Amino acid sequence: MKKYVYSFKEGKVNMKDLLGGKGANLAEMTNIGLPVPPGFTITTEACNEYYEKGRQLWSELNDQIHEQLAGLEKLTGKTFGGGENPLLVSVRSGAKFSMPGMMDTILNLGLNDETVKTVVKVTNNKRFAMDSYRRFIQMFSDVVMEIPKSKFERVLDEVKEEKGAKFDTDLTAEDLEEVVAKFKALYKEVKGEDFPQDSKAQLLHAVTAVFRSWNNERAIIYRQLNNIPGSLGTAVNIQSMVFGNMGDDCGTGVAFTRDPGTGEAKMLGEFLMNAQGEDVVAGIRTPLTIDKLMEINKEVYDQFMEVSTLLENHYRDMQDIEFTIEKGKLFMLQTRNGKRTAAAALRTAVEFVEEGKISKEEAVMRVEPAQLDQLLHPTFEATALKNAKSIAKGLPASPGAASGAVYFTAEDAVHAAKKGEKVILVRLETSPEDLEGMIEAQGILTARGGRTSHAAVVARGMGKCCVAGCEELKVYEEQKKFVIAGKEYKEGDYISLDGSTGNVYEGTLATAIPELSGHFGTLMAWADEVRRLKVRTNADTPRDAAQAIKFGAEGIGLCRTEHMFFEEDRIAAVREMILADTLEERKVALEKLIPYQRQDFIGIFEAMEDRPVTVRLLDPPLHEFLPHADEDIAELAKTMGVTFEELKVRVDSLHEFNPMLGHRGCRLAVTYPEIAEMQTRAIIEAAIDVKKNKGIDVHPEIMIPLVGDVKELSFLKEIVTKLADSIIAESGIELNYMYGTMIEVPRGAVTADEIAKDAQFFSFGTNDLTQMTYGFSRDDAGKFIKDYLEKGVFEQDPFQTLDQNGVGKLVQMAADLGRATRPDIKLGICGEHGGDPASIEFCHKVGLSYVSCSPFRVPIARLAAAQATLKEKLGGGYSQK
Amino acid sequence: MKKYVYSFKEGKVNMKDLLGGKGANLAEMTNIGLPVPPGFTITTEACNEYYEKGRQLWSELNDQIHEQLAGLEKLTGKTFGGGENPLLVSVRSGAKFSMPGMMDTILNLGLNDETVKTVVKVTNNKRFAMDSYRRFIQMFSDVVMEIPKSKFERVLDEVKEEKGAKFDTDLTAEDLEEVVAKFKALYKEVKGEDFPQDSKAQLLHAVTAVFRSWNNERAIIYRQLNNIPGSLGTAVNIQSMVFGNMGDDCGTGVAFTRDPGTGEAKMLGEFLMNAQGEDVVAGIRTPLTIDKLMEINKEVYDQFMEVSTLLENHYRDMQDIEFTIEKGKLFMLQTRNGKRTAAAALRTAVEFVEEGKISKEEAVMRVEPAQLDQLLHPTFEATALKNAKSIAKGLPASPGAASGAVYFTAEDAVHAAKKGEKVILVRLETSPEDLEGMIEAQGILTARGGRTSHAAVVARGMGKCCVAGCEELKVYEEQKKFVIAGKEYKEGDYISLDGSTGNVYEGTLATAIPELSGHFGTLMAWADEVRRLKVRTNADTPRDAAQAIKFGAEGIGLCRTEHMFFEEDRIAAVREMILADTLEERKVALEKLIPYQRQDFIGIFEAMEDRPVTVRLLDPPLHEFLPHADEDIAELAKTMGVTFEELKVRVDSLHEFNPMLGHRGCRLAVTYPEIAEMQTRAIIEAAIDVKKNKGIDVHPEIMIPLVGDVKELSFLKEIVTKLADSIIAESGIELNYMYGTMIEVPRGAVTADEIAKDAQFFSFGTNDLTQMTYGFSRDDAGKFIKDYLEKGVFEQDPFQTLDQNGVGKLVQMAADLGRATRPDIKLGICGEHGGDPASIEFCHKVGLSYVSCSPFRVPIARLAAAQATLKEKLGGGYSQK
Repeated sequence: MKKYVYSFKEGKVNMKDLLGGKGANLAEMTNIGLPVPPGFTITTEACNEYYEKGRQLWSELNDQIHEQLAGLEKLTGKTFGGGENPLLVSVRSGAKFSMPGMMDTILNLGLNDETVKTVVKVTNNKRFAMDSYRRFIQMFSDVVMEIPKSKFERVLDEVKEEKGAKFDTDLTAEDLEEVVAKFKALYKEVKGEDFPQDSKAQLLHAVTAVFRSWNNERAIIYRQLNNIPGSLGTAVNIQSMVFGNMGDDCGTGVAFTRDPGTGEAKMLGEFLMNAQGEDVVAGIRTPLTIDKLMEINKEVYDQFMEVSTLLENHYRDMQDIEFTIEKGKLFMLQTRNGKRTAAAALRTAVEFVEEGKISKEEAVMRVEPAQLDQLLHPTFEATALKNAKSIAKGLPASPGAASGAVYFTAEDAVHAAKKGEKVILVRLETSPEDLEGMIEAQGILTARGGRTSHAAVVARGMGKCCVAGCEELKVYEEQKKFVIAGKEYKEGDYISLDGSTGNVYEGTLATAIPELSGHFGTLMAWADEVRRLKVRTNADTPRDAAQAIKFGAEGIGLCRTEHMFFEEDRIAAVREMILADTLEERKVALEKLIPYQRQDFIGIFEAMEDRPVTVRLLDPPLHEFLPHADEDIAELAKTMGVTFEELKVRVDSLHEFNPMLGHRGCRLAVTYPEIAEMQTRAIIEAAIDVKKNKGIDVHPEIMIPLVGDVKELSFLKEIVTKLADSIIAESGIELNYMYGTMIEVPRGAVTADEIAKDAQFFSFGTNDLTQMTYGFSRDDAGKFIKDYLEKGVFEQDPFQTLDQNGVGKLVQMAADLGRATRPDIKLGICGEHGGDPASIEFCHKVGLSYVSCSPFRVPIARLAAAQATLKEKLGGGYSQK
Repeated sequence: MKKYVYSFKEGKVNMKDLLGGKGANLAEMTNIGLPVPPGFTITTEACNEYYEKGRQLWSELNDQIHEQLAGLEKLTGKTFGGGENPLLVSVRSGAKFSMPGMMDTILNLGLNDETVKTVVKVTNNKRFAMDSYRRFIQMFSDVVMEIPKSKFERVLDEVKEEKGAKFDTDLTAEDLEEVVAKFKALYKEVKGEDFPQDSKAQLLHAVTAVFRSWNNERAIIYRQLNNIPGSLGTAVNIQSMVFGNMGDDCGTGVAFTRDPGTGEAKMLGEFLMNAQGEDVVAGIRTPLTIDKLMEINKEVYDQFMEVSTLLENHYRDMQDIEFTIEKGKLFMLQTRNGKRTAAAALRTAVEFVEEGKISKEEAVMRVEPAQLDQLLHPTFEATALKNAKSIAKGLPASPGAASGAVYFTAEDAVHAAKKGEKVILVRLETSPEDLEGMIEAQGILTARGGRTSHAAVVARGMGKCCVAGCEELKVYEEQKKFVIAGKEYKEGDYISLDGSTGNVYEGTLATAIPELSGHFGTLMAWADEVRRLKVRTNADTPRDAAQAIKFGAEGIGLCRTEHMFFEEDRIAAVREMILADTLEERKVALEKLIPYQRQDFIGIFEAMEDRPVTVRLLDPPLHEFLPHADEDIAELAKTMGVTFEELKVRVDSLHEFNPMLGHRGCRLAVTYPEIAEMQTRAIIEAAIDVKKNKGIDVHPEIMIPLVGDVKELSFLKEIVTKLADSIIAESGIELNYMYGTMIEVPRGAVTADEIAKDAQFFSFGTNDLTQMTYGFSRDDAGKFIKDYLEKGVFEQDPFQTLDQNGVGKLVQMAADLGRATRPDIKLGICGEHGGDPASIEFCHKVGLSYVSCSPFRVPIARLAAAQATLKEKLGGGYSQK
């Protein structure tokens, strides 16, 4: 028979999968001899079976629960639901990963009309007994029977008013007895039956309620936010109650063994005497700091400090501890690794090494890579946030915090910014034409688009705060205003954006820029010692490149050339090129672009020095470079000296039904090889220039986008390498460059063996590969991905974390096929996933050479890459959470 | 050393890959002892090496040519380029598959100023010698030196005028000597040097010219049209000349051993005395029918008839023969399997069996499946076409021929058709809203879209003529006119469309509807005996279903439900459903649709009887059902009783950047399960109704589109099967239905093992799978696919013929993974490729259970499926061409 229930004595800390974090830790503490109230844990497997069985308990499980209950009665010498000395228990959830406050808890279970009387007798404390009973009735009714808590609170308030009591503690035992009676009456009124008296039945109800709460809405959302799979299930801990509210020699508290905000090695704890745990959290009475305990009960204080140190040393990590003092006796209710800020995570990790408690490698595993983001971007000051009113919430598209005056066009934004104003660019959605405005803005707010929309991608590249897809926002770009919930905001009005939460605030909020501590540098250096994957950056400008190098980038994995095309001084030539009628006209226009492109690359090559730079040839469909509104077309027509109609027809002829699946990528170069020639010339001439004039050994890598068939690559190879080689030969300088491709089309992946014949490197473009493998575009998927996540069809957004099962299978296949043809092929990833820790771990496993991500994610990638190496080395012995 | 050149004695008929069709047949005829002028063949491999070497001959090849030339001199006792008895040769192309007239030929090579004199002496026929020389100079100058032929013709015309000669044959030997002198002068004037005199050098030049002509424009286009890979290359045949123009005892002709138009077993031949082959083809003199040869030279006639019969029996197929009579002696210059019409192909195949010359299986292999299309659709009468002027050419999107008055909206077309007018619907592009108009029209003409555009797909489904993507056409829908090359055509003007060629004609042309002969039925029955693959049809209406059954369909592989949504009586409810604000409102609207949908399915189930019917749940994005033009929105708003602004906002909110990658397919059903419920109810209730009332054992198969993750399928399975099972249980009737999915998203293919857990069948939607695997949409790919084909990047349009290398790899993978999970999984294909013979062969190899195609392609699919079986059985021993 399968074992579904473990007593604390039977568990261990490494059984978190089965017993949940809380259960495993209670077991561990029990077994190292700490004063833990005895109890038992129902496994996560039982939870999953509960769902499989159509949300029902079953006799095997019930039997095991009752058996353990009997054991518990024996151990405590108490009787559950009756007897001389009634056993009261708590029923708490406890998943593998801590989900504080997300699921349900029931305390004081075991009380009923009969046992409450016995408790009065045994404790000689009627007030305590009645207080516990009324709490239990409310909690059970709320959690198990789904009677709104507010109904009970109203009753309690009425009694308090009647009695002239300000706090709950002002009520007497008799008052509380009255409350109990009224609560039971309320229950009967709502449910049409008496409040149940069978404690064993209540216990099973409570277990069911905890199981059920695994899939309540806030738990689901929490899991989505924290990438916790819904398939894990929760364990249930049933533990004999100890009471901090039985009198003044009782109390309860929580403590962190080090400061979770800064990481300083100093205990941070709070407690309340004569209180239950929830009172500390609820904040009705102000708790005391832990050092005050010394004055109240030195013995308990000393014991607690000793146990805390013991726990920290045992777990070799900062602990978050809950304790209760019952009649002067200390009980440990919970310990877990404490949640901490990024700064604290860094400091504790480094100091634990310095204290000789953990190894450098363990320290590297201790810091959550994604958390580093906090350290790299400005945030709003906590005090400012306290009083701020969020007027809308969008997607947290690019972290950071910014305040500024709203502007609705890139042009207006640039204009205002040049005058020294701080600007927030607000758009329905951004397009490459908005680039200048985005550069000048403090932050970007869009009504449409997801976390991988243009606005989001570009903003992250710049390390600039962005809130995207804010659906409550109605943007009227022409009238230069937006409306949220009926309220209008006009050009020049101030708002603030929090790109880490997606919140939009009215007015200006104070921001703080965290400084990078020495601990950061120390830990990153340790990470660099460990990792195998190289970390490059996606950067299109010398400025971005320089920023990325500061963060430790070892090359550019993706330099997009199209953003360069939008700058004011060259867009005219670009448009001339697109609208050219003949090859000759097109070549004339391209000739004008060469000096600009060459200068772009000179700047980037100089910034990157001898690090490799992968330049992707022109990728987006040409219509992206043309205006689409009639008035803009009219204006351009005037500039170009053609009629509106002529230009309009031309613009329309470039329209595409599905631009994502249209005339773009290498398809442009196949039909217009002269564009590829212009870009090749610019890249190679720039490289020669920098090598000649600065003596830098430049390593350009020319990358052909969107290849699905090796013949595309061969066709362009003939053109690109022939030209490059002839320019190099003429220059008399030795220059090594590479020719390769992106793998971002499923066909490219499945025929990678053929493609590798003509590619010296592959760079996985997992944004597009995800779009095409799933068959949905990131711009349109917003409409249903939320539904998919809510209905459990998706566990994660595949644009955020690489879908290893599907997209990853293609990546793996392409890597294998590529290496089969060309064993020394260089493999990298330049999609957004290159900055996502889980995806980086996958890239490590597949054996890529490098990941490439936006400059501000480079440190995250370095750390994640190190952790991937360590996990592999240690066979998953370390855990991040 | 590699052998590049084979004498005719060294070759064989099965060496077509290496020697080309002509070379292999000349070798075969030589070896069976027929009178073939001796010669040799340069291999197709040499042609390919010529291109690999940068379009140059090389010494090894030259040496082998010279060696064979020496052998030829020895065999004929003549000397090449000089001597007492000059050897003259022809140089002709000859690819594996016949490409008549596409490549270059040079005759009389070996003539120069010296040998021409010897020829005068040897033949004692100066006129012949001079005539041959002037022909050679012109041909060599044109083909090898690229001097336009017209320049020479002008000179010839001048001489003829001067001499008062009407025909070339009116010119005397001296006149022709003058022509030769003038031709040489012309050559010198253009080239700046004398006409070359070294015959051996000329020969190598001529070989080069033939190689080069493999990639001339018309050859490339011909190959594209006929799916002949460019990688095959051409062979070159060098053969000693025989002359049909040396006097009245000479002649030349061509003959088919049976009538290539009807297949009747009666020789069809023509010849001219005292003429060269080109004269027969050129049509300057009217040739005589072959029976006249009996009167002129009975001996030769008898010999020819004997040889013809011998050849037909040897090749066991109808032969297309070229022959020459030189001084009363018969020479065979070429034999090949004769090209024939579909009707002739059927008749000859069946009659060869009846004559005991081939087996039924060979007969099945003899008919090109695609050719059957000719028999199933109306065509223009040949005489009508002769005088017709094509005003534009689009893509041949759906075969057939139609004339009618042009109308520009579906509404106008329906209106005119209801009045009895024959109508051609002309649109920029069609959308599902045009369906009624398409049904009423004789043919459809669109300016945009490819062969898999909406117009093309729907028209093919209806067996209706369609010319799509006619780029020369400028359509002004609002002004109800179109313009071609500056000429305006207005509503009501008559045009004619040829859907098999893409030609558009002015006015009305007479059409003929071929009747299906008994031979058709016979051959199809033989095909059915052989094939393993089942053939289903894609049909959305009882009418289409009935048509398909007539053509032999064994079930419906794809019944799209969305077309039903557009019909006038239900589109209002559909729109109400889409625009509903709440679930309740949506359910009310869906309730209105149920009776219609149920009736649709009743009609289809009745038509299909006990054959399986796969019904695909709603697939297209919802905005396709809404109007987009402001005026239409305004009208709908009025009908719906909402303001224009409200409706406009709603319509806009459904806009998608890439509808192909948007909220469609099963994603609709996941977000709106009530739609899937309505459709399930309609399908199951209809099936029960038909079973109850007609006693038909209906086999519905419910198909979920666009599945990429098994969880989508499981989520919907819960909803669909639960509802279906409860309806069936309530009915008290036994009904078997299946639940399955389309595999049309790459992720669906790579995770097919998981998906098969919840799918009883897979249907490969290779249209979408091709789009997503390549990452280009069929609507947008038109812009570059032509370029890709021209530049040799693609050998075939992957939307026409399944890309086995890439898309096919995913199909194979999905089939294998699916069977691994569920060994009895039913596998089919319902993309357009299901009607393409090459793709059908692939489906057979992969082991699918059935293919499904539009009704009019069902016979093609039956035949192709049979051929696939035979090819597999015989290991490729039969060849189609």
